[in-house]
Formats: sequence, structure tokens, C-alpha cells
Amino acid sequence: MRCALLLASSLQIGAYLLGSTPITSGAAVSSARDGRKGPSPAMDAAATEKKPLPPKITWDSHTYVDEVPDSLVREDDLGGNMDMRRRFEANCRRAQNEICKAIEELDGSQFQQDVWTREGGGGGISRVLKEGNVFKAGCSLSVVYGSMPQEALASATSRGADRAKGYAPGERVPFFACGLSSVMHPRNPMAPTMHFNYRYFETEGGVWWFGGGSDLTPSYLFEEDVKHFHGTYKAVCDKHDPEYYAKFKKWADEYFYIKHRGETRGLGGIFFDDQNDRDADTIFAFSKECLDSIVPAYVPLVAKHKDDVYTEKQKQWQQMRRGRYVEFNLVYDRGTVFGLKTGGRIESILMSLPETARWEYNHKPEEGSPEADIMDAFKNPRDWC
Amino acid sequence: MRCALLLASSLQIGAYLLGSTPITSGAAVSSARDGRKGPSPAMDAAATEKKPLPPKITWDSHTYVDEVPDSLVREDDLGGNMDMRRRFEANCRRAQNEICKAIEELDGSQFQQDVWTREGGGGGISRVLKEGNVFKAGCSLSVVYGSMPQEALASATSRGADRAKGYAPGERVPFFACGLSSVMHPRNPMAPTMHFNYRYFETEGGVWWFGGGSDLTPSYLFEEDVKHFHGTYKAVCDKHDPEYYAKFKKWADEYFYIKHRGETRGLGGIFFDDQNDRDADTIFAFSKECLDSIVPAYVPLVAKHKDDVYTEKQKQWQQMRRGRYVEFNLVYDRGTVFGLKTGGRIESILMSLPETARWEYNHKPEEGSPEADIMDAFKNPRDWC
Repeated sequence: MRCALLLASSLQIGAYLLGSTPITSGAAVSSARDGRKGPSPAMDAAATEKKPLPPKITWDSHTYVDEVPDSLVREDDLGGNMDMRRRFEANCRRAQNEICKAIEELDGSQFQQDVWTREGGGGGISRVLKEGNVFKAGCSLSVVYGSMPQEALASATSRGADRAKGYAPGERVPFFACGLSSVMHPRNPMAPTMHFNYRYFETEGGVWWFGGGSDLTPSYLFEEDVKHFHGTYKAVCDKHDPEYYAKFKKWADEYFYIKHRGETRGLGGIFFDDQNDRDADTIFAFSKECLDSIVPAYVPLVAKHKDDVYTEKQKQWQQMRRGRYVEFNLVYDRGTVFGLKTGGRIESILMSLPETARWEYNHKPEEGSPEADIMDAFKNPRDWC
Repeated sequence: MRCALLLASSLQIGAYLLGSTPITSGAAVSSARDGRKGPSPAMDAAATEKKPLPPKITWDSHTYVDEVPDSLVREDDLGGNMDMRRRFEANCRRAQNEICKAIEELDGSQFQQDVWTREGGGGGISRVLKEGNVFKAGCSLSVVYGSMPQEALASATSRGADRAKGYAPGERVPFFACGLSSVMHPRNPMAPTMHFNYRYFETEGGVWWFGGGSDLTPSYLFEEDVKHFHGTYKAVCDKHDPEYYAKFKKWADEYFYIKHRGETRGLGGIFFDDQNDRDADTIFAFSKECLDSIVPAYVPLVAKHKDDVYTEKQKQWQQMRRGRYVEFNLVYDRGTVFGLKTGGRIESILMSLPETARWEYNHKPEEGSPEADIMDAFKNPRDWC
């Protein structure tokens, strides 16, 4: 068993889960290929000059603030690709506003906002729709200055040795991370849950990468809905690289897998990490377009089903699938587990959990039922487009 | 971070979680002190003769059987303390019958039973009350023949070096484990949840130990109930060792701690592991008396509160506390995590989860309310007797 498995490679909603992604990600800035635009000179300089470690993060390190700062990226942090840090944060904040607005319009009620900063820099903007008419939903921005063991960086991939340039074994390597993360749980069992997160990382030592993904978790299978969601993301992928969709669709099927159940959490979508094989601007453009596709990929599906009639039995099935969502997030999601164990803001991390969930001993859907139909798709991931 | 943290030291309900306990437990048979009764000669012999490893356990390794075998302990396994293996199993099965009978009488409905055996020996008897009038409850016997890495044994404690006698680094060490485990979740929010498990371990190489505990998880605080539960176990402890209660009460407070919340799962009870500092018969007698005290310690509390009137708000508070129960079991309980990751019978492992649970963003009990009162006891464990 590798301890690294516990470390996060997915930014679960909000918080400092971000801290974990490097484990499966990373490539040295200096490996930027093909003469495409490389890192800024400031970032290369940072690779050789060590900064003091950020203070130890604990669950009490968050300070709530009434006013939203213009940026949560530190002004005084001259190393790194400052331009990308600021642009990534600005884009997350714009997307957060747009997505929340679309959800509020559908729901008829408002997100509640909590803003906090952290000692040592960074902070977050959490938005939660607690008692919505249509949803229990959360959408959270995080900016994190943290540190992680050099080994966690160096041992993760073949390129990993470059990740912690100038750091000795045992030394912790400072990192910067920014991400937007969200889970939307509709109340109606015919309307699917959706999760996304998009994130950008830099480590001291000159390593950067992008990660992210959007995935759909219905309780009942409406093929045209799943095709619409996957199709929207396939179109985005295809614009950027003809190999992206197949690769990132498979990655989602593998990542959102509840091993002890032998089934996926939902019907997938796309998932990627460790992206730095082309220049940062190019990957940023892809990441941005993925974020911009949340509303058109998802909102119509909920609009269509939010008022569907359903039985008590169907509601219970949804609740059992939400139990599986809880199992995945608490047992496997590397972001959640890492966040819980390393001092993220708990309420932001666990915003991803549904409002209610159910467990029934040894429940088996009736053969030929709609529940058995979607269960088959959870057990045997299908191609949707 | 130590990988060993992931390995179980607690037998969560049913299944092969048992496999984990050695991590925090163990002392060589040969270290039995003070001339008290030591291991059987057969067990010493086993220490020097390696047996083939049990087959790899997977989630599909369980075979359901219609008839309950007289014993799940292997007949042909001549090494080890066969007498204790058989007595421990027999006692668990007797206790399972008695406890389930008392719960059925209170509930007015019957446990459903699933019996399974496993390739390589062992198996289990799971009993579940799915749709009880008073409870959702489970009570599960497991007999396990498994194996674990030598390092997991050897690195765990100062005595650990003796645990895997004759095994080289990297080698997996076969073990035997037997335990009875249970969680009872009453429907009424005024009636407390209760969990117990009592287990006995032996490893190839001549190491054995006992572990176990009983703990109470109310949603509302009735001091006299908590005093009755703790008092019952204090009386049992005091009969066997004047230091047991204080030590095992503290162990429970520390073990059932939800670190990311800064609160305990419930109001504790007793928890112990790694017990082999006196002869096996003596510890068995203590373990037996703990099991025999489940009914008198717990059943009167549910009888008293099962028909209490309650509000919707109180039911929701209970559901939120059950959300915390889920968080503890899926994130921290070493038995559950180990079982999920190593191929236990899923439905038996997750029998410990409540039927339903709830999460509310940033919920804070009103100051001076009964919810705030018990929350204080979760944040600052109290002495009850």
C-alpha cells in the first residue's frame, strides 16, 4: 500500500484539498515542449530560491471576512507565474458568479456566501444553496498556499523528480493552488447530481499543472440527458485535442469508481490532472472552456426534470445512490480525504455531501427495473457519444 | 503519514476488518508473564512452522450457505490455541443469540440472517433488523483466516518484533481472527445508538491478543442513561482490574474521535486492544463479561425512550448526528477502512451505517439548547462515574 494514495489529486469542493493534487501530477516548467510559450522568467528564478514555508494549517486557521478581497492571490509573492495565478483566480470568480446566477434563476432562491482568508495567504469564497426549491448546492473558490513533502512530489511520476528542484528528502515544498469546485444535488430523483472542479497548481521549484473535470450522477437513466452532457464536453475536448475526450472520459470512469461496490459513482464525464504538456495559456483556454460549459451541459437537464412526478420508492432509490456518493467522497476522493486530514475548511470540503442519504442492507434492484438498468451502467461504463 | 494508520485495529461490524487489529496490538506468546497459564504447546510449535498463505480474499470470495455450520473455525488447523479459538467463537455465537433475542423482544420484529463461508476457511453470520419498529440494527459474527504484511506486525509496537517470528520483511503473515460486532440505531431520536465489538486474534508466529469495546452515541443527553451505561461497564472493569475502566474509558474517548470536527462520535464507553498481559483465560473471562453486559447496559435505555414524543427538528438533529456517525465510520474507523480496501463482505461492513443521515452546511446548535449541551460533551469528554 502506498501512502501517496491518501493524498489528493482531485480538488473536491472548496478548501485546501488542492494541496494534494501534485501527487499524481506535475512536470518541470523547464520541460515545456515544442518551443511553445514557457514559464515566466520570474518563475524560473523562483526555482532556485527557497521561500519560508507557509504556517501550519489547522482547522482554526480560517478568518471570516465581511468584504470580498479583489484577489486572494498574494501580492508580495514574486516567484511563480503571477500572471497565470491571477488570471486563473479571476476566471474562477467570473465562472462562480455566472454558474451561481444560472442556478439561482432555476431554483428561485439565493446562494449564501462565506468568505475567509488564511494566515500566510489565500482564502476562499464558499457559496451554498442550503434550502433551495430545486437544489442543495455548493460552489466554492479556494486559493491555497501550502506545503507538501518533497517525496510526495518526487515519487509520483517519472517526471516527478523535477517537481521539487533544490529540495532535499524530507523537506516540505511550498505550493500555490487555485480552484473552483462544485456539487449540485437536485431534490427531484429524476434530475441528476453534477460535480465539477477546475484547478491550477504551482510548486516551489518551478512545477505547474492544470487539473479538473465535470461529471454527472443521475439516479435514473435518461439516455438523451447523458448524451447531452457527455456530448457538450466531447465538443469542447475535440476543439482542443482530438484525443482529449476519449482519454478524459476514461479517466473519469476510473477515478469515480467505488471499488468496494464494484460500481462507478455516476455516469462520468471528463476528468484530467497533471496537464502541462503544452504551454500554460493553451491549457488555460481549455480549462476555461470546460468551466464555461457547465451551465449549457447541466442546467437544461435539471430544468427538464425538476418537476417530474415520482414515487416514494424512487425517492428512496435516489437516497441510496446518495449514500454511494457519500461513500465515494469519504472513502476514495483523494481531495476530500486529504482535506479532512490536513486542515481544510471542513464545511467547504463537506459541502459536496448530499443533504440526506440512505443505506439499506443488501439492497438489490428488481430485474428489468429502471434501477437495475442504471445499475448496469454503473457496473459497466458505457460510451455515450 | 504512516500507512499503518489505514490498517484496522477495530473490528467494525462483521467481516474481515479483523485483519487489521495487529497494527496496534500484539505480544509474543512466549512473553506471557508471571508464570500464568501460557499458550498451548501446539501454538508454540506453530511458531516455527510456516503454513501456506490463505487465498487472496476478494469481495466475491464469500459463499452463502443455507445451513449454519457448527463452527467456522477450521478443523484441520492444528497450530494455534485451538481451544481458545473454539471457545471464543462459541461464546460470540451464544452472545449473538442472546443479544438479538433481547432486541427482537423490544422491537417486535425479527433479525434476518445471512450465513457465508469463505474459501480457505472462516465465514460469518450476519444478522440484520432492516425494518424494525424500534431499530435499524445489525449484529455480525466473523471468523477470518487472512494474512498481513510482516512489517505491519513488526513495526506496530515495541513488542511487535515478536509478532511475526520467522517471517522476513515483505512476507505476509497468516492470522486467525474471530469477533462479534454490532451497531443498533433506534429510530426515536431520544434513544441512543450503541456499538460494540469483541474480538480475538492469533498470528502465525505465536502472537495472540484480545480487543473490544462498547460505546454509546445519543443525540440527546440524558445524564442518568449515560451514567447507567458507563456504570455498568465500570462495574465489569472493576471486577477484573481496578485500572481497566479509567484506561479503557479514555481509550474509547480517543478512538471514537472525529478529528476534522474536533468532536467525539458519541459519549464513549470502553475500548481496548492489544490485551495479552495476562493469561488468555483471564482476558477471555473479561471479554465474555463485557459481552454479557450489552443487554443490561443498553436495552433499558431504549425501552425507556423508544416511544418518547419528538419534534421534526429533533429528528433532524438525530439525522445530523448520524451524518457524523457515517463520517467517523468511513473516514476514521480503521476496521471499516481496512475492510473496504481489502475485500471484506461489504454488506456486513457497512451494516454499521445508519439507515438515513443528514448534512446541513455550517449547522450550529442554538446556545443553551439541548443540542448545544450534548455538543459540549462531544467536544469535551466528561467523566460519567
